Amino acid sequence: MRIGELSDRSGVPVPTIKFYVREGLVPAGVRTQVNQVSYDDRHLGRLRLVRALIQVGGLSVASARRVVSALDDQPADPKAALLTGLGKTQYAIAEPEVGADSQDMDALETQRVDRLISHRGWTIGPHNPSRVELAKALTAGARLGMEGSDALLDSYADAAGMVAEADLDGALTGSPEESVERLLIRLIIGDRILMALRRLAQESAARARLSADPSE
Amino acid sequence: MRIGELSDRSGVPVPTIKFYVREGLVPAGVRTQVNQVSYDDRHLGRLRLVRALIQVGGLSVASARRVVSALDDQPADPKAALLTGLGKTQYAIAEPEVGADSQDMDALETQRVDRLISHRGWTIGPHNPSRVELAKALTAGARLGMEGSDALLDSYADAAGMVAEADLDGALTGSPEESVERLLIRLIIGDRILMALRRLAQESAARARLSADPSE
Repeated sequence: MRIGELSDRSGVPVPTIKFYVREGLVPAGVRTQVNQVSYDDRHLGRLRLVRALIQVGGLSVASARRVVSALDDQPADPKAALLTGLGKTQYAIAEPEVGADSQDMDALETQRVDRLISHRGWTIGPHNPSRVELAKALTAGARLGMEGSDALLDSYADAAGMVAEADLDGALTGSPEESVERLLIRLIIGDRILMALRRLAQESAARARLSADPSE
Repeated sequence: MRIGELSDRSGVPVPTIKFYVREGLVPAGVRTQVNQVSYDDRHLGRLRLVRALIQVGGLSVASARRVVSALDDQPADPKAALLTGLGKTQYAIAEPEVGADSQDMDALETQRVDRLISHRGWTIGPHNPSRVELAKALTAGARLGMEGSDALLDSYADAAGMVAEADLDGALTGSPEESVERLLIRLIIGDRILMALRRLAQESAARARLSADPSE
């Protein structure tokens, strides 16, 4: 297809497509004649993904480029490709300054993360950036006096485990690239879905508890 | 306490404190003598909250100001104050452009949100911005071909309900202001915690499924 059709089908304006190609986020089209460049469904799929990463996931162009190159550069063995791809995309979507600022992270909270992972029997690579992210978030919470946080953390971990299993259901089909892309979309879009649902559930649960209050 | 001690105890540099006071995020100190302004624990608590909103929650100064004024301006009846405070802070931390861009939202997904809320028996005010947020995220997911999404959405909603109940446990004590502040902190910090836990749980669950694969 021509770039105009690609734009219509993806909802991404032509100048933005050209920008993404220039930035290496979307592969260049194939020149079929002088002044004519052709795109296919692979371009369309990649374009939709990049748009989702940037507009829905709120990623910077640099982060989106890291995600995309993680998808493009994978080992040949399917299982290794899947795990490597997952790891690389998780790394790519993490905050770029991960691990840089030790002031934002108490040693106690870092230990708490390790303890949680071991209690749950989770197998996590040492470089998964979410270890650091979690320690930072717990540190910030502790400094704000977020009480009851051990029980709370356990509930969060239960919920996260539930969502992770649901995300994996039906996701590991097709090529490793397809599985990684599917899980990545579920991670990023799922964050947004989960945040919105939490707020809705919180309002409803608060109303229920207040109206059930016997002192009413 | 003097501004230097406030800075030491909050970890916020003096010029940043002055900026927050100027921007109306933190109330001004009380002038006790010429050239001497005094701050108390209320200032310290508010400062920690503002820092968390901006640095951990990633809110803009304008959004943080909306949250803070929601906390400062509440009705006298405790229950009304609590629900109004919750609603206002949820509104304040939502994306500012909520509802603005109907192109980002399919009518089908909006109906799906309403259906989900009614199936779950959730009581949600019509203006909770997370309705729109959820419809937008679902629309983006559908456009990216996020399959199996009804079962997936149900798992997400189960997880969100679990977290919401855990957030409310022990949160509704003290004054309405304190409850709202506590729930707000749990919402914002909890988003970060939950995102990190999802990524950890996803890695572990993927490893478990791949090693349990009988074709191995």
